[in-house]
Amino acid sequence: MRIYFTFEPRPDLKDPLVAEFPEIDFVFENGLSNKELQRADVLVTYGEDLDDNNIQYAENVKWIFVASAGVEKMPAQAIIDRSIVVSNVRGIHKTPMAESILAHILAIKRAIPWMYEQQKKSEWSKKAKQTELRDSTALILGPGTIGSEVGRLLQAFGVTTIGCNRSGKEAAYMDEIVSFDGLLDTLPRADIVISVLPKTVETTHLLKEAHFKAMKSNAIFMNFGRGNLVDENVLIHAIENGEIGYAVLDVFEEEPLVADHPLWTLPNVIVSPHVSSHSSRYVERSLDIFRPNLEKWLNGEKDLENVMNLSRGY
Amino acid sequence: MRIYFTFEPRPDLKDPLVAEFPEIDFVFENGLSNKELQRADVLVTYGEDLDDNNIQYAENVKWIFVASAGVEKMPAQAIIDRSIVVSNVRGIHKTPMAESILAHILAIKRAIPWMYEQQKKSEWSKKAKQTELRDSTALILGPGTIGSEVGRLLQAFGVTTIGCNRSGKEAAYMDEIVSFDGLLDTLPRADIVISVLPKTVETTHLLKEAHFKAMKSNAIFMNFGRGNLVDENVLIHAIENGEIGYAVLDVFEEEPLVADHPLWTLPNVIVSPHVSSHSSRYVERSLDIFRPNLEKWLNGEKDLENVMNLSRGY
Repeated sequence: MRIYFTFEPRPDLKDPLVAEFPEIDFVFENGLSNKELQRADVLVTYGEDLDDNNIQYAENVKWIFVASAGVEKMPAQAIIDRSIVVSNVRGIHKTPMAESILAHILAIKRAIPWMYEQQKKSEWSKKAKQTELRDSTALILGPGTIGSEVGRLLQAFGVTTIGCNRSGKEAAYMDEIVSFDGLLDTLPRADIVISVLPKTVETTHLLKEAHFKAMKSNAIFMNFGRGNLVDENVLIHAIENGEIGYAVLDVFEEEPLVADHPLWTLPNVIVSPHVSSHSSRYVERSLDIFRPNLEKWLNGEKDLENVMNLSRGY
Repeated sequence: MRIYFTFEPRPDLKDPLVAEFPEIDFVFENGLSNKELQRADVLVTYGEDLDDNNIQYAENVKWIFVASAGVEKMPAQAIIDRSIVVSNVRGIHKTPMAESILAHILAIKRAIPWMYEQQKKSEWSKKAKQTELRDSTALILGPGTIGSEVGRLLQAFGVTTIGCNRSGKEAAYMDEIVSFDGLLDTLPRADIVISVLPKTVETTHLLKEAHFKAMKSNAIFMNFGRGNLVDENVLIHAIENGEIGYAVLDVFEEEPLVADHPLWTLPNVIVSPHVSSHSSRYVERSLDIFRPNLEKWLNGEKDLENVMNLSRGY
């Protein structure tokens, strides 16, 4: 069996893997070549390097392990046509993303941006406008794996968590759940509004002018899902009019954000360049998921973790 | 009965208090006057405005409620001589301080300082050097009320907590406890070293050169206790020599930190101007502690909360 990685893990991660499976021919390349694809039985990829044309060369590939959570860029139909099993690393982002979200919330509450500026001026001042996270209320749009991890951490800080999903069905670490239909009525209670929603037809421009008007004027709005959630002009208008207190954005309608985009310089906006899920431990975590699934695959077991339904897109 | 406040709470906090105790004459002033002190039965103060001379005027004062956690600046002997009961708001700092400490740790782990600088340049870059807090180990010097709250939150993030106190006796939310004697041997295991120790003879220069040499070269060292913990020259030397990765300092040997102090500009040092305990909810919280104790006092009960032993200093 030949396993083709289109990226090369660090030696301290790669070598133990190779040693653990001596019966397997591993090929590690940085990038995708059709020649190697043609010889591979299993493909391990970040999922952004494959197109319809490549898949024609994947004659022997029976399993694609995607070391990523999204598959938006994969040639879904071509993969389905070839009956290739695709599994991913769902859940891998939850720790770094939840830590990033908490980092931004706490930084704002505890006046960290102000403090860094004071230090640059070597200016001792106690005029920090600090508030507390405890006893506040957070509304979490999309309380799935990541959203629930955010909820778990917020609850540890004494925050009331309200999950909001399409159906209104229960979710972990949410004190309360509302459906998308109940969103507008619930927004006035939230001190923090966090979206980790995926991109779907239903989430596109889910938040409209009325939603921002319904938020507290000091609310922190955070988009860590996808940029389609809100028309950026609507968001900019809400910030300029003081309808919300802060916007912390990890995703945008178009990425990268162009240099002259108004969001870069608008007061009370924090731009995170879609890095909230990044972590120095990403490859390590991916291989931790890959290894037991490879065992299963070698034993002929078909119940891999996180097998994807490409026709649904997740 | 006459209660003299040497600070004036906001109307929304003051008015309900006055309404709740109609039998009491409340006097609110911003500052201390001997004239009012002479007429007072109970004194409510932040504790920094009293000296030996003032206490001579406190002829009728039987109880001093200190809306602060430290009493270092109070005229202890004069108060003891007059047998005045002193109680404070111990524990009031735990929420804002623990939130500040977590804010700084997460900011460093998730590259928030880098992100803020990128935004100033309107520069989209994904080259953030982000790590994770999860699975790291924190050593907490002084696992009391504040230290244990820090431990509780860190454990929620999947951090192993090691408390370090004089005796090695158990403390809440610590996976392990070591005594001061075991400190040096334990430091090599810690990714984060946090002190919330009070100022005592034993804590003065508790950390020496050998301790910084024993720390991991990427360790985050945080002093949120008192500036006497370490000779700042030793600390500066450790940072300049890369013996530690980061220093986050809320307290200093001399405060305010003078404008030309090297700590302001040393790379990988964060200066927090002794504001980690500040909160917009401070007075509210103090009065929440004061109110039930005033009830007790009026009923002649002597078991007030947080009665202090001034001769011991806490």
